Amino acid sequence: MKYKAPAKITLIGSGHWGSAIALIVGRNAEKYRNDFDPEVRMWVHEEMVNGKKLTEIINTQHENVKYLPGKELSSNVVAVDDLVAACTNSDILIFVIPHQFVESICNQLKGHLKEGALAISLIKGFLIDKKEGVIRLVSEEIRELLNIDTAVLMGANVAQEVANEEFSEATIGYKGQKEKWPILKKLFESDNFRVNLTKDSNTVELCGGLKNIVACATGFADGLGCGNNTKAAIIRLGLLEIIVFVELFYHGSNIQTYFESCGIADLVAACSSGRNRKICEAFVKTRKSIQDLEREVLNGQSVQGPATAEAVFVMLKKHNMVSRFPLFVAVHQICNQQLSPSCLMEHLRECKSELPDNWVKGQQFFTNAYQCK
Amino acid sequence: MKYKAPAKITLIGSGHWGSAIALIVGRNAEKYRNDFDPEVRMWVHEEMVNGKKLTEIINTQHENVKYLPGKELSSNVVAVDDLVAACTNSDILIFVIPHQFVESICNQLKGHLKEGALAISLIKGFLIDKKEGVIRLVSEEIRELLNIDTAVLMGANVAQEVANEEFSEATIGYKGQKEKWPILKKLFESDNFRVNLTKDSNTVELCGGLKNIVACATGFADGLGCGNNTKAAIIRLGLLEIIVFVELFYHGSNIQTYFESCGIADLVAACSSGRNRKICEAFVKTRKSIQDLEREVLNGQSVQGPATAEAVFVMLKKHNMVSRFPLFVAVHQICNQQLSPSCLMEHLRECKSELPDNWVKGQQFFTNAYQCK
Repeated sequence: MKYKAPAKITLIGSGHWGSAIALIVGRNAEKYRNDFDPEVRMWVHEEMVNGKKLTEIINTQHENVKYLPGKELSSNVVAVDDLVAACTNSDILIFVIPHQFVESICNQLKGHLKEGALAISLIKGFLIDKKEGVIRLVSEEIRELLNIDTAVLMGANVAQEVANEEFSEATIGYKGQKEKWPILKKLFESDNFRVNLTKDSNTVELCGGLKNIVACATGFADGLGCGNNTKAAIIRLGLLEIIVFVELFYHGSNIQTYFESCGIADLVAACSSGRNRKICEAFVKTRKSIQDLEREVLNGQSVQGPATAEAVFVMLKKHNMVSRFPLFVAVHQICNQQLSPSCLMEHLRECKSELPDNWVKGQQFFTNAYQCK
Repeated sequence: MKYKAPAKITLIGSGHWGSAIALIVGRNAEKYRNDFDPEVRMWVHEEMVNGKKLTEIINTQHENVKYLPGKELSSNVVAVDDLVAACTNSDILIFVIPHQFVESICNQLKGHLKEGALAISLIKGFLIDKKEGVIRLVSEEIRELLNIDTAVLMGANVAQEVANEEFSEATIGYKGQKEKWPILKKLFESDNFRVNLTKDSNTVELCGGLKNIVACATGFADGLGCGNNTKAAIIRLGLLEIIVFVELFYHGSNIQTYFESCGIADLVAACSSGRNRKICEAFVKTRKSIQDLEREVLNGQSVQGPATAEAVFVMLKKHNMVSRFPLFVAVHQICNQQLSPSCLMEHLRECKSELPDNWVKGQQFFTNAYQCK
């Protein structure tokens, strides 16, 4: 879509990741004046920090002292505490809030958005469909609740490293008309943040969530004292289960997407660092529950791997596919203490080494969906 | 090939990796009596250990006290100090020696091998063609010097972890008649060592050598203090350069091979541990030369990444393809101190994100070369 006027941007969210990405978006909005309105609004869930409103601090100090201390936001990033006011008339809405708030935020925004506005979700992890117990994509939720075109941005993006301007990559997945989306690449890309676009949106988002299950498995392996061979095997077999799962439930993914940052890169990063790996290592070593460890090790932050593994398990059971996903299933059963962590190895031995059949027959490969730098 | 009599096995080599694999091969030869002659000969480059011949120690204590202390070989593994005697009448020859000895060993064996014998190379890393300065596959060398069918076994296989019976995977790549090779899977596979067969032999072997270049790059990144985003990006971009390089110089590889243990798994393992990564991290931190660090950090063991990067560079230059491989080229130029390690980032920015064109057009995908468990 060509905007007649420069596009107005709103960031919905101002946590650690939201503030990190605001550094880039703020600079780009200033830099590309033909494309973007330089004022970038950032919706802030208001709170008091050292006796001052967080919005006021951001708008005077240009620093999110609570969630990204030490990094200067460009002065065109304006904190706004009223969600609807922050989003009205915006052409591009960047969702970067904890996933559990998506529904309520969307419900507040209903009927207040500009026609033709675009959304992009930077939220990693899935929603769980309460009735069915299965996974639900955040982008689907936004798309349906707001009736708005919605893309996703995923990749190996530790927020602090992005904020430090360390070289990082990301993948934007979109659906529908190709012409609408290059503006998002322009908005997010910088010298140290390389962005590729692909229309294989579901795969991009699914990789971002499913990799947490695999990260749990590598955490268990670390807890068991396994070496590099085993961990490398888990990453490989986990990637194969991700691919087969996506193909099974969301048909028609593009193999190239797995070679994007959202694919192998994010998987590798999650399996070498990341909360899921850490908590699951501690789970094996301490025999405490995941919930207790979230409190003790992560100060109450939650990990998504176990819940994702559970929702995936429900889906597999429903489709009689439990035996096809030994790794995913093992993670679920270890997390809920049905299975001892040491049984992970037995499950690894059961893992399939095949890519999906329809790919092997060459039918669904390289659909030309791909577009890169 | 169907053997009329059980196949006789010889291991050519008895170092750390050779002894680790002898544990598995020895047990399997005993277990599958219909397929294998239970006596497994292991050629040992004779040396004195504590005043005794190493062959004698192995044949009495059933332990390679020098190269794999603490692990008991099954008694059917017989150490032999005479290379030709060890190989005469053998049906399967397992090459597991340092790559610099391949030519001389093959020359000694010429004319002494049983007709129809099979070879398999477990040697990681390439030979360098002295005249041209380009890489040369170990399997090609064996095949040509001995006129013998030659497979390769590669994967994420830290030898000590295999010896410890930690869960590991490997890939066997073969050429030619499919029927000849399943016996190798039977010979090497165990509960904790899963083996897949593919006829995409060149790719299997090329992955095993080229990954060392990428491991050097992650080592530089570690030396520079880079975080997980950058390292994940290096692994991803490195894998893409591996794929494009293989396609360019050895046409017709199968995408599935990169999803095997020899592909992403070995790459990930080399980039998280491994000598190349370690030496290159020290290279950045100490500013000493690679040669000095090999002496100081690895007690004189050599790393293959820098030499591989150099030979690859020669090939790229010859074909006017230097600009297509910014990561490979950066590793070479950093190793030979033409380029400062901090320039790695500039090269990363130049990296292409595309898979080979002929793949994108779907022409060469999934040739059905694949055969797995």
